[in-house]
Amino acid sequence: LYSSEVKKCTIIPGDGIGPEISAAVQKIFAAAKVPIEWESVDVTPVRGPDGKFGIPQSAIDSVNRNKIGLKGPLMTPVGKGHRSLNLALRKEFNLYANVRPCRSLEGYKTLYDHVDVVTIRENTEGEYSGIEHEIVDGVVQSIKLITEDASRRVAEFAFQYTKENKRHKVTAVHKANIMRMSDGLFLRCCRDMAEKYPDVKFEEKYLDTVCLNMVQDPTQYDVLVMPNLYGDILSDMCAGLVGGLGLTPSGNIGLNGALFESVHGTAPDIAGKDLANPTALLLSAVMMLRYMNLNKHADIIESSCFATIKEAKFLTGDLGGKAKCSEFTNAICEKIAAAS
Amino acid sequence: LYSSEVKKCTIIPGDGIGPEISAAVQKIFAAAKVPIEWESVDVTPVRGPDGKFGIPQSAIDSVNRNKIGLKGPLMTPVGKGHRSLNLALRKEFNLYANVRPCRSLEGYKTLYDHVDVVTIRENTEGEYSGIEHEIVDGVVQSIKLITEDASRRVAEFAFQYTKENKRHKVTAVHKANIMRMSDGLFLRCCRDMAEKYPDVKFEEKYLDTVCLNMVQDPTQYDVLVMPNLYGDILSDMCAGLVGGLGLTPSGNIGLNGALFESVHGTAPDIAGKDLANPTALLLSAVMMLRYMNLNKHADIIESSCFATIKEAKFLTGDLGGKAKCSEFTNAICEKIAAAS
Ligand SMILES: CC(C)[C@H](C(=O)O)[C@@H](O)C(=O)O
Ligand SMILES: CC(C)[C@H](C(=O)O)[C@@H](O)C(=O)O
Repeated sequence: LYSSEVKKCTIIPGDGIGPEISAAVQKIFAAAKVPIEWESVDVTPVRGPDGKFGIPQSAIDSVNRNKIGLKGPLMTPVGKGHRSLNLALRKEFNLYANVRPCRSLEGYKTLYDHVDVVTIRENTEGEYSGIEHEIVDGVVQSIKLITEDASRRVAEFAFQYTKENKRHKVTAVHKANIMRMSDGLFLRCCRDMAEKYPDVKFEEKYLDTVCLNMVQDPTQYDVLVMPNLYGDILSDMCAGLVGGLGLTPSGNIGLNGALFESVHGTAPDIAGKDLANPTALLLSAVMMLRYMNLNKHADIIESSCFATIKEAKFLTGDLGGKAKCSEFTNAICEKIAAAS
Repeated sequence: LYSSEVKKCTIIPGDGIGPEISAAVQKIFAAAKVPIEWESVDVTPVRGPDGKFGIPQSAIDSVNRNKIGLKGPLMTPVGKGHRSLNLALRKEFNLYANVRPCRSLEGYKTLYDHVDVVTIRENTEGEYSGIEHEIVDGVVQSIKLITEDASRRVAEFAFQYTKENKRHKVTAVHKANIMRMSDGLFLRCCRDMAEKYPDVKFEEKYLDTVCLNMVQDPTQYDVLVMPNLYGDILSDMCAGLVGGLGLTPSGNIGLNGALFESVHGTAPDIAGKDLANPTALLLSAVMMLRYMNLNKHADIIESSCFATIKEAKFLTGDLGGKAKCSEFTNAICEKIAAAS
């Protein structure tokens, strides 16, 4: 589809260390001769005609035009009326499925070996509905919203993903013993979808049980699908098993486009000092390439990144090394050159 | 208060392995000459005059009279109209704080050493409100209910617990970046309470961040306080770090009494075979003794249990041993006798 022409991609460098790690990814993509032309946009909120702050129209237009984007970390502006920009983007582009693969990196030792799980998170509703009321003084309700449409959509995505990526099992994670109607609906959508994918194993587990099992033996899980908040929790937990948010990629998939992002923070303390680790953003960009069917480019970049980490000669501070971001980046570029 | 007289305690042996592990605890208590008289009750739901199933009045009366109880695992009956009995008990007795200490056991090796955290969970509301509606076909809302009263009550409990147990820090766990009003209210109550306990360190963390940190380095946490569902998740996860629900105790504290319980399942596959591990129920009973100010009895039972596990001569199957429940129990009783 995409592989023969140069495709335009929106890039949102982001705040803090965002610009340096974005530059690192762009450099590595250039070294791998990825047929992509970047369109860099700024999403710093601007005040609209209604007085409210929002994402600049030019940024929205760029993503809508290109239908594909890469995003560094964003700071949520402090003060009333500002909601998380990350969430605003998911909403604006109806990015309904959040995919986070967590795999043990050969060169980076943690307490866990052979972790290889993918969390697939409903990304538009649930506890993130934003609907809350103070009923009377000191009594607040937040609404967890579960719809059949959104649940079925993400369930279908999970099974399709599992099949396409030659994985074998989908675990639906829920608390339908407590939230019988809402999580019950989510679960039913997963069960229904399971019937359409007879080659994919399907199981249902309570969220608390998954959390317990995951710290004891993560290898029992493969692909996990779940409502929004549970995905927020489990994806971070799984990232922790393999080394944290600096090493794990994330993709937000919509009907009409997709946005890939590193989900770590902006690390203001080291910003601008050439000390940041670009791995999470790079692996997110690799996910993006696969989404675009640029698999060969994805493979060479990914294996060069892994090899560089395994070699451990140019590791950034967060990985226990002393290398600069640029040294780590150059090491990857050299491996790519050597392999080409 | 209690220590000079014989106190009556309700015991709910429970289902599956419940009766055997309850008998084990009673035997160990007898060996330690704990001045307690047990009142055993059955909570199998009975059909009331209104046709609905509920906990038998005699069981409710017993707990209300004794104001203290120990409970084995309960099966939730299958079928419409049955809600979890565990939840019904928490509700019936207004057991507002759930306390689960998770400590590494010297004799039982996991991936983690020196874990020593306590989760304190709001136990009456939040996502467990039970209020759910199907708005239109395929659109469901569940209500997360947060009140100032319940939040303040559990926050106060957490700080008081931390102080009394000579611990040093309370972490409030929340997603107030998403549920600004509900988790915001909970968090405000924790902050307010923190001011009344200047000697206790206080910090606030996002739930996802805690999950990530916890699998990387649990030693950075001490006492954690949080809304209901978050406690369900985190307590299981922390239990996983030290060996699972078979080794970790739990206490539900109310204004008017307290119920201590093991939170593992009923293990029907090994029920009645003298194979179950009574440790979680025994350590819950030890928590109960401390609650009753029977500290000396608590100490001797606890240290005999730990010593038996450390010695590893009589371990049950779940801990990799071959001992029967009764052999493990006898080994503890002998240590108690030797120490008395
Ligand atoms: C930044 C925050 C709003 C976000 C979330 O809660 O979803 C983050 O934790 C994530 O997982 O992407
Ligand atoms: C049995 C179940 C209803 C319960 C819960 O969800 O609270 C359990 O997981 C627990 O933690 O005590």
